[in-house]
Amino acid sequence: MAGSTFGKKFKIMTWGESHGKALGVVIDGCPAGLELSEEDIQKYLDLRKPGQNKYSTPRSEDDKVEILSGVFEGKTTGTPISLIVYNKSQRSSDYSEIASYYRPGHADYTFDVKYGFRDYRGGGRSSGRETIGRVAAGAIAIKLLEIFGVKFTTYAKSIGPYEIDMDKFDENNINNDVLRMPDKETSEKAQAYLDKVRADQDSVGGVIECKIDGVYPGLGDPVFDKLDARLSYAIMSIGAIKGIEFGEGFNVANMLGSENNDEFYMNKEVSKFTFDLIKDVSKKTNHSGGVLGGMSDGSQIVFRAAVKPTPSIATPQRTINKNGEDITVSIKGRHDPIIVPRAVVVVEAMAALTILDAMLENMGTTILKP
Amino acid sequence: MAGSTFGKKFKIMTWGESHGKALGVVIDGCPAGLELSEEDIQKYLDLRKPGQNKYSTPRSEDDKVEILSGVFEGKTTGTPISLIVYNKSQRSSDYSEIASYYRPGHADYTFDVKYGFRDYRGGGRSSGRETIGRVAAGAIAIKLLEIFGVKFTTYAKSIGPYEIDMDKFDENNINNDVLRMPDKETSEKAQAYLDKVRADQDSVGGVIECKIDGVYPGLGDPVFDKLDARLSYAIMSIGAIKGIEFGEGFNVANMLGSENNDEFYMNKEVSKFTFDLIKDVSKKTNHSGGVLGGMSDGSQIVFRAAVKPTPSIATPQRTINKNGEDITVSIKGRHDPIIVPRAVVVVEAMAALTILDAMLENMGTTILKP
Amino acid sequence: MAGSTFGKKFKIMTWGESHGKALGVVIDGCPAGLELSEEDIQKYLDLRKPGQNKYSTPRSEDDKVEILSGVFEGKTTGTPISLIVYNKSQRSSDYSEIASYYRPGHADYTFDVKYGFRDYRGGGRSSGRETIGRVAAGAIAIKLLEIFGVKFTTYAKSIGPYEIDMDKFDENNINNDVLRMPDKETSEKAQAYLDKVRADQDSVGGVIECKIDGVYPGLGDPVFDKLDARLSYAIMSIGAIKGIEFGEGFNVANMLGSENNDEFYMNKEVSKFTFDLIKDVSKKTNHSGGVLGGMSDGSQIVFRAAVKPTPSIATPQRTINKNGEDITVSIKGRHDPIIVPRAVVVVEAMAALTILDAMLENMGTTILKP
Amino acid sequence: MAGSTFGKKFKIMTWGESHGKALGVVIDGCPAGLELSEEDIQKYLDLRKPGQNKYSTPRSEDDKVEILSGVFEGKTTGTPISLIVYNKSQRSSDYSEIASYYRPGHADYTFDVKYGFRDYRGGGRSSGRETIGRVAAGAIAIKLLEIFGVKFTTYAKSIGPYEIDMDKFDENNINNDVLRMPDKETSEKAQAYLDKVRADQDSVGGVIECKIDGVYPGLGDPVFDKLDARLSYAIMSIGAIKGIEFGEGFNVANMLGSENNDEFYMNKEVSKFTFDLIKDVSKKTNHSGGVLGGMSDGSQIVFRAAVKPTPSIATPQRTINKNGEDITVSIKGRHDPIIVPRAVVVVEAMAALTILDAMLENMGTTILKP
Repeated sequence: MAGSTFGKKFKIMTWGESHGKALGVVIDGCPAGLELSEEDIQKYLDLRKPGQNKYSTPRSEDDKVEILSGVFEGKTTGTPISLIVYNKSQRSSDYSEIASYYRPGHADYTFDVKYGFRDYRGGGRSSGRETIGRVAAGAIAIKLLEIFGVKFTTYAKSIGPYEIDMDKFDENNINNDVLRMPDKETSEKAQAYLDKVRADQDSVGGVIECKIDGVYPGLGDPVFDKLDARLSYAIMSIGAIKGIEFGEGFNVANMLGSENNDEFYMNKEVSKFTFDLIKDVSKKTNHSGGVLGGMSDGSQIVFRAAVKPTPSIATPQRTINKNGEDITVSIKGRHDPIIVPRAVVVVEAMAALTILDAMLENMGTTILKP
Repeated sequence: MAGSTFGKKFKIMTWGESHGKALGVVIDGCPAGLELSEEDIQKYLDLRKPGQNKYSTPRSEDDKVEILSGVFEGKTTGTPISLIVYNKSQRSSDYSEIASYYRPGHADYTFDVKYGFRDYRGGGRSSGRETIGRVAAGAIAIKLLEIFGVKFTTYAKSIGPYEIDMDKFDENNINNDVLRMPDKETSEKAQAYLDKVRADQDSVGGVIECKIDGVYPGLGDPVFDKLDARLSYAIMSIGAIKGIEFGEGFNVANMLGSENNDEFYMNKEVSKFTFDLIKDVSKKTNHSGGVLGGMSDGSQIVFRAAVKPTPSIATPQRTINKNGEDITVSIKGRHDPIIVPRAVVVVEAMAALTILDAMLENMGTTILKP
Repeated sequence: MAGSTFGKKFKIMTWGESHGKALGVVIDGCPAGLELSEEDIQKYLDLRKPGQNKYSTPRSEDDKVEILSGVFEGKTTGTPISLIVYNKSQRSSDYSEIASYYRPGHADYTFDVKYGFRDYRGGGRSSGRETIGRVAAGAIAIKLLEIFGVKFTTYAKSIGPYEIDMDKFDENNINNDVLRMPDKETSEKAQAYLDKVRADQDSVGGVIECKIDGVYPGLGDPVFDKLDARLSYAIMSIGAIKGIEFGEGFNVANMLGSENNDEFYMNKEVSKFTFDLIKDVSKKTNHSGGVLGGMSDGSQIVFRAAVKPTPSIATPQRTINKNGEDITVSIKGRHDPIIVPRAVVVVEAMAALTILDAMLENMGTTILKP
Repeated sequence: MAGSTFGKKFKIMTWGESHGKALGVVIDGCPAGLELSEEDIQKYLDLRKPGQNKYSTPRSEDDKVEILSGVFEGKTTGTPISLIVYNKSQRSSDYSEIASYYRPGHADYTFDVKYGFRDYRGGGRSSGRETIGRVAAGAIAIKLLEIFGVKFTTYAKSIGPYEIDMDKFDENNINNDVLRMPDKETSEKAQAYLDKVRADQDSVGGVIECKIDGVYPGLGDPVFDKLDARLSYAIMSIGAIKGIEFGEGFNVANMLGSENNDEFYMNKEVSKFTFDLIKDVSKKTNHSGGVLGGMSDGSQIVFRAAVKPTPSIATPQRTINKNGEDITVSIKGRHDPIIVPRAVVVVEAMAALTILDAMLENMGTTILKP
């Protein structure tokens, strides 16, 4: 039942509905001593906030975060950090109609079955606004991981049929790009495509890719709490994600072992007296996506997640209402024609929460030196 | 650290190494009153045991399971069920060489980094024999779910380039087929392909598909413990799995909302006085794969998992040894040229453990009638 | 690390410091459909709020609770319930001195050792104000348990040397009594005693007793999650509690088996055809305190908790400061001379959270009828 | 439901019934690299095994432990450690009668209510033999804690009316004493008393005291996972324990703040440049029992647990049978007249499991130096 709790050591509990008073998260288990300000969190919330451009919902929200506890004299104290974002623009009238029927592709029906009724205003708890808590907590995880040299690069890899050209990869373009693509040219094509889709009152999906550098090898706990298993759990828990794959991913199904295995080699002169298991070992390729046997292998962690098209579309659709009548509906309101760009930072946040938790879980694993 | 524990209510702890005395699992939280015999478990272990045919390792193991606790007068008592399988064929000599180097595609290196040393005999804890505990526990979950009308159909969907033809789908062929394919014709082609791959001292991957019928709608707990998120965690925790997708999966990236949304309809005459939210509602399509908003939607749950080629191959590969020297190795021993067929029952077991846990977690979610 | 999380199914996370902006709690896993208003929670917070009388700190706080999420149209939705209480009276100047030294009997020293520094304002997270979150969440648990017929009676059993006379037990006196004693006469004697203790700039301890009626037999999960074990964990987690005992408690150490065992008997005519295991069975005595083998036995659950004297006293005490100097201090400020009366509702809240969680955990334990 | 699992990082799952094939425990999360042999575990099991003397059940069991996994080349590997003890002396005939009725003071009734039926042979899972798993796992925890300088001293403080004289405390007497008392004289008096109690076909209770030295300050996680709260949970989960108290315990109820507070002092010359928060700080007294604000304070941890008299007595008692008839019973069989001596090592084991878990949980709590 208690499904809004995530993490074992860096544990978070998110709360809030689309049209409630506020949304937020409590983080229980953040190490003490981290310098933390509201600005550290705000910059990530700004990447997901609505109304940034024509490809996101025009709902007007500042999404200003406030730290209510757990920080003293500019540093985390080790006690729970409570973060809150007040809702400003709850135009419930926009949504009152949807109380009466089940939107295709949405959780209206499953919420009613599970709980007996639902907060239908703007999707309630199933709204994308739920991710505010994820991103706010993730911002802290990212800041803490930076201290240990971990760096995330997350972006839209494809939107509809348009996939980025890796040769034109420009990391700096990501956060400047309305579609969060690292390839400006592809982004422009995708934007033109999106304009057409929007005009057709439709929506489209895409793929988000996340690359994580600097992860110490050995994170992840066999046999169930493998790092890729926990990342999959984290990413698949984001609404609209329908698949995840690591490294070669689904390509492995038609690869040979001799193609897919990554060979190890010594990446420097071995020191005269000791062989440093971490510094001296490298892989020639990274088909594995940075995970071997469920543990980080010291190379870049790479995964991709498939994002479905926004289910809210104005195109007429058949469905049923709460009286059990077959009806036709056209979902009006303030909807994104594409979820991918705003979901990029959510994916990064969930990845960071997972990596940090695995790092904290890993402490005390051995009394031997690796 | 404690990564060998799975589940919240139907909680399992697996243990054992490839060449240790035994392997097993303890199940804590199995409901009392289930009729259970060793045969109920054995039939699933037999589907994964080695030496079944030329496509699985010739290691000779009976894998006979023994129930040590938790069952009295033929029924589960509600207390922990301890299951044990003794190892018979520990030919450690086969594996002694691998103590000295890191096999490409294996967890040798990551185990050494994480724990400081490793049980190198047959891969120790990272061996596929680890899945004995999963399958034994899963067998009990499957039996319990049967009572509630839940049915699993799991099979090899593709091996290398050979994918089954859905028009020739024959469920009865699955367990009779050496490759666990429901399409005899494709299986024969895949077998011919595998013979060639084996002759080349190589290995190949594939895709496993799992379909789950009869799942009550509303299972899964937003926002993190979504049913698809937990299934992803469970399946991705199986060694060699590199990706998972639900329903349309990665296809959604290039689908329109109007294509991907599943329309609802009334699947029968509504009764005069009441509208039964569960019996009367259906979806015209199932692009979602049976999950909406992270909860089962009453239709068939469908997911696919990508399985990498067996990393143990006799083809010479470059790697390093524990002295930090670059070397060439050829992995000899008793290895499967393809993991897929024996992993089918493992996927089914993990899916069952997850569905059962979600069902037990769901109890008490509401004091209202759905 | 994540020590501010409690419960398995009815899971709560509390947050906030004595002199921070606010304190609160998020409840994840509350069943949907419970009618809930702020008033339901406020009445319990009022029982613990400061400034009620001369035996509690004169700090002036309304402690008004606000529901931020999880309730829609007057009913819980099954999603997280976020509750907040803003601090009004943070006179940090009162406490600034204590930043420099370690108060005897307080957590100042242990916080510094554990976290590297501390929020010293009013004790920060170790302040009794932390219990606001417990009481707010407990109020919801109590309301839900009422539906199932569970009733709590909690009170001060003794204060200093004054113990209530069970023959003069008057339940109605409890919440009207400044000391929360059910025996007016003893309360008056204790008040006179407290006046003297206060005049001496000292403090005193006491014993809280909690009786729980209407608990269904069979709650609690052998062997570790016994109901009394979980209640002990819950109650001992309240600051200032130094001991807990059930039924005869420490008396059992010098009792004979023939004295301590509770004999069973049939408490009514057995129906002609069936013997109702729950309705028909009673115990002649209740030395066990309502728990047998770690499970509720259908009789009243009874436990007592020992509360230490308030450590903040104006009496001069020796201690050390942060420079490592031996000093003498006299703790000024707004302190309760006795913790017991305000802790009564905290004990009740924690007991309710535990019983409710055990009840939810118990669902699905058996597929047989008891 | 899953009540046989204990610990967060050093997680254990125990299993087995009194008259089943075997009992055991799996430890998931033991740090790698600990030297471990069966003998390390056996010496603790020998302290609890039956038939040691006339004060314990004459049931004849060797209780020989076997390590089945998780240890390689004499060291723990970081993977689950499975330990098994086979039952030898299952004289089920002794117990067959009790299938039909509910023994006073036992869990027969509550098991039937909870699970619908029970394994009645020797009490099944509610038998004291259940503690084999606790002691076996605890032995590993004790060994690991020794490396960090933690030492346990656990003993019978009182049996019936006989309490040890602290002036005659002789630690070496504990394990040589049939009653596990550190005071030979009091033990002899208690033995004479027990002989009389046994002749009367009765049983008696007592108090176990546990002292833990060398615990690093700062262990335990406010606000719920306080060290004393977690120890209480662990100890109260042992069958027959009815109360627990720390330091002054229930005495605090009638102490003044000025009596109960422990003053801090500098226990050595402060070094010229730095003040070592851990080495330099001491308390003049230890009324707190080594815990302040729920965290270890660097002084000795002291707690006492009240043990009820063995419920199995031959003295005739009234009860009911499964047909709902009032009957008189006399419990025959192989029972201890006193639980205390054999429970001493169980208390120590549970304390060690808790301290070790708190130590592992504490890692990563701060990025600041204490």
